[in-house]
Amino acid sequence: MPTYTTQQIADRVGGRLIGRGDLAIRGVDGLETAGPDRLTFIRDAKHAASWSRSQAGAALVWEEADFEPGAGRALIRVKDTDLSLAVVLEMFAPPPARPAPGVHPSACVDPTASLGQNVSIGPGCYVGPRARIGRDCVLHSHVCVYDEATIGDGCELHAGVVVRERCELGRNVVVHANAVIGSDGFGYRPAPDGSRWVKIPQIGFVKIGDDVEIGAGTCIDRGKFAATTIGEGTKIDNLCQIAHNCRIGRRCILAGQVGLAGSVALGDGVILGGQVGVADHIRIGAGARVGAKSGVMHDIPAGETWMGQPAQERSVALRQAATLRRLLESIRTQASKLRPNASSEHAEREPL
Amino acid sequence: MPTYTTQQIADRVGGRLIGRGDLAIRGVDGLETAGPDRLTFIRDAKHAASWSRSQAGAALVWEEADFEPGAGRALIRVKDTDLSLAVVLEMFAPPPARPAPGVHPSACVDPTASLGQNVSIGPGCYVGPRARIGRDCVLHSHVCVYDEATIGDGCELHAGVVVRERCELGRNVVVHANAVIGSDGFGYRPAPDGSRWVKIPQIGFVKIGDDVEIGAGTCIDRGKFAATTIGEGTKIDNLCQIAHNCRIGRRCILAGQVGLAGSVALGDGVILGGQVGVADHIRIGAGARVGAKSGVMHDIPAGETWMGQPAQERSVALRQAATLRRLLESIRTQASKLRPNASSEHAEREPL
Amino acid sequence: MPTYTTQQIADRVGGRLIGRGDLAIRGVDGLETAGPDRLTFIRDAKHAASWSRSQAGAALVWEEADFEPGAGRALIRVKDTDLSLAVVLEMFAPPPARPAPGVHPSACVDPTASLGQNVSIGPGCYVGPRARIGRDCVLHSHVCVYDEATIGDGCELHAGVVVRERCELGRNVVVHANAVIGSDGFGYRPAPDGSRWVKIPQIGFVKIGDDVEIGAGTCIDRGKFAATTIGEGTKIDNLCQIAHNCRIGRRCILAGQVGLAGSVALGDGVILGGQVGVADHIRIGAGARVGAKSGVMHDIPAGETWMGQPAQERSVALRQAATLRRLLESIRTQASKLRPNASSEHAEREPL
Repeated sequence: MPTYTTQQIADRVGGRLIGRGDLAIRGVDGLETAGPDRLTFIRDAKHAASWSRSQAGAALVWEEADFEPGAGRALIRVKDTDLSLAVVLEMFAPPPARPAPGVHPSACVDPTASLGQNVSIGPGCYVGPRARIGRDCVLHSHVCVYDEATIGDGCELHAGVVVRERCELGRNVVVHANAVIGSDGFGYRPAPDGSRWVKIPQIGFVKIGDDVEIGAGTCIDRGKFAATTIGEGTKIDNLCQIAHNCRIGRRCILAGQVGLAGSVALGDGVILGGQVGVADHIRIGAGARVGAKSGVMHDIPAGETWMGQPAQERSVALRQAATLRRLLESIRTQASKLRPNASSEHAEREPL
Repeated sequence: MPTYTTQQIADRVGGRLIGRGDLAIRGVDGLETAGPDRLTFIRDAKHAASWSRSQAGAALVWEEADFEPGAGRALIRVKDTDLSLAVVLEMFAPPPARPAPGVHPSACVDPTASLGQNVSIGPGCYVGPRARIGRDCVLHSHVCVYDEATIGDGCELHAGVVVRERCELGRNVVVHANAVIGSDGFGYRPAPDGSRWVKIPQIGFVKIGDDVEIGAGTCIDRGKFAATTIGEGTKIDNLCQIAHNCRIGRRCILAGQVGLAGSVALGDGVILGGQVGVADHIRIGAGARVGAKSGVMHDIPAGETWMGQPAQERSVALRQAATLRRLLESIRTQASKLRPNASSEHAEREPL
Repeated sequence: MPTYTTQQIADRVGGRLIGRGDLAIRGVDGLETAGPDRLTFIRDAKHAASWSRSQAGAALVWEEADFEPGAGRALIRVKDTDLSLAVVLEMFAPPPARPAPGVHPSACVDPTASLGQNVSIGPGCYVGPRARIGRDCVLHSHVCVYDEATIGDGCELHAGVVVRERCELGRNVVVHANAVIGSDGFGYRPAPDGSRWVKIPQIGFVKIGDDVEIGAGTCIDRGKFAATTIGEGTKIDNLCQIAHNCRIGRRCILAGQVGLAGSVALGDGVILGGQVGVADHIRIGAGARVGAKSGVMHDIPAGETWMGQPAQERSVALRQAATLRRLLESIRTQASKLRPNASSEHAEREPL
């Protein structure tokens, strides 16, 4: 781990140092667990009271924080605690684990594939015929790139990632371990005699924009005949399922285990909470948000927040839930009055 | 991409050509995005109006469609638009991406394993002792087949698929990337003194029928002492979880992220929507359907459609939801009458 | 398959043999499917009636079971049917499928990695710089251990498992196929100008206690700056998502497809049903249980059972559900009385 002084850290984040500038900081830790050689962070007044009990040597705090560091300690006031924390974490980040530059001798790169300058192709990788790997790409071990897939400059593909044939990744895309890009869409039709399911060929591909990040184990199906698309700067968490023909806008956030059925369209900047499901062909407008675990059955206008199963606009859903809760409570209260001897222990079996 | 004339396509799908038979078609695309050298499809009268605005050269339409192709264009009337589309997509499908015939030099095939004629075993594959790979099988890169597993004729296993020991796949099974067949069932019992969980050995296997397709990242656990079974022709989407001892019938459809707990039994032709969960030991009768995101806590009779959490028969669930919605609306309306000055802005906090 | 006499099995499980002690038993099977050379098990009086119709040669039964084995058959009375079944399954378990001892020639082990005695490193494995693999570890094919990760003694990592840099596994940890340990946490902040998401570096790691078992396809994200921790003896099923900074206690059970958002804390012995989702920073006390498919939005006190979406204490949730069901039924009954001609067939469209 590298070491920086509190002054060096304040300079790097462009913050205002209060207290000692010469403290040696060797890492970042939480308010309760940090020791004297660690920097912590305090986002709001609610947590400020814990500072005096903390053992941390220094803390990033918000700009208007008016408490003092105390003897032998330091505070660094910054505009945005979280962004400054990101900068500090970068300072302390160990060098990334990466395969050596070049092509590992155990990797199998088809002679018709093209490799950009300064690529690192790890042990056991497979790069198929006519695939293209851009410059500065890092493929960790056992990455598999099928025929004619294109990986843009500066991408990092973690171990076990599979990119199917003809899929296209933009620049600086990060794909986490064991994710699958371009699996067949799930399309079948009953045979005329109903005896079996006929597979609809899935001859499209997946097109992923620049600066996208895709979580571990996430699966993105190829389009039926055109592309499933993921817009620039979108971030997708682990174990999400993106079905065929989806069109995801730019700078969207999809939390863990989200599932999009076929042909869903998300505008730019849409945020979906964990385990959200969206029915096929639904359109969600730019900037809309959907609460965790919701089931989206209707189009959502731009900018709105929806929640519930089935999802509704947030204020409607909250009002309905509150009305229902009061109604059930009032029924229960009246029932108790009518039966003064009713034991609360029987409530579960005798609710009215 | 190959090129076909509209007449050739009409002949191949057995449809009736209206208009130009000599148009050169080079692919399939959507009604709004297709150009003059592309075929599109129109399933119903609702979308027929868009035909005149579309740039597509030709379209598959339903048999009784009564509109005209217009100058220099073509319509192909067919019995089943979707099945005909499947045929056309097959015509335009690029050759599949496949490892070369034979065993790639980097693959590791145990000397006691048996390989059928005309197999393709890709880079980095592992085939364990006494495993059997049927004729015409394709194993993409990094597929791992544990000891004594059996892969039937004509199967395709995509990159990163794992088939655990003694599992059996029928003929023409397709398994998508990074799926896992035969992982241990999740079975534990508290130790007598409560100090830890004792693992129940999972010594069974998985038996998969002919023509099954299994999605990317899906996991199917082996039986405790017998088989977890997947019936012939069943199709399972990505990231599904099938627990130990499940018995899935023939021609079922399981959409993305479905989870079946242990010992669930599905009859033939059951259809489960995305993110459905089914509790352990539940039985779902043949031909039953379950709406997306439902939680099934009770057995479902054959042929019925259920939905909700907990799932109920569809008409019951819809009726209850409608009754509840009207009830809550009427409470709200009455509350507004009683408090004429109540601002709707307070509705969220003061719903009654 | 090995063969044991009923007496040998009774001795091994410490049970009391009733009936024939010399029957040859060649395996375990269900009550309905077992033949004369198979042992089955009967947990309670409800299933005892099926014994006379079963073809099984012998059965494990509970201690006070008072029915007779019948001619030529045997019963073995035991304290805990399930634990005894575990013992018997172990007796009949085929030898485990494992790569040969030593390092497979196709594996790539960095010269700076350290390997304990008696390891089995399978085909195509990758072990990175300064990684440590404890004694008696088994790495099946294509396992990938990044730089400086530590795998404790006696661990088994199935095919395709990825352990990212600096993660630490305790002793006797089992990780099933294609699981991912230590993927980046999902942390972003909007850039000051809102033009993009800034990634918060995820420089922590994952620390897993002894005797933990992790299901196929499950993903566990590394901490932002400290560790995501999984306590000793905890069992996690397939396709679960554990986000960054989670702290999971000892001996917890997480069923399939559970999702924990960031910084969730579970006490010891917590049990989460399938598809449960838990919001970020939630604390669930020791011994608490959460029903399948619940969405946890509030802290749960130790020892309580919660369910529903949003989850509530079980008796509250059940009482509310029962009250609501009765209310909706009474509305329907009254509506029918008021409109005597109303056909039930219209119920769906005319619910009131």
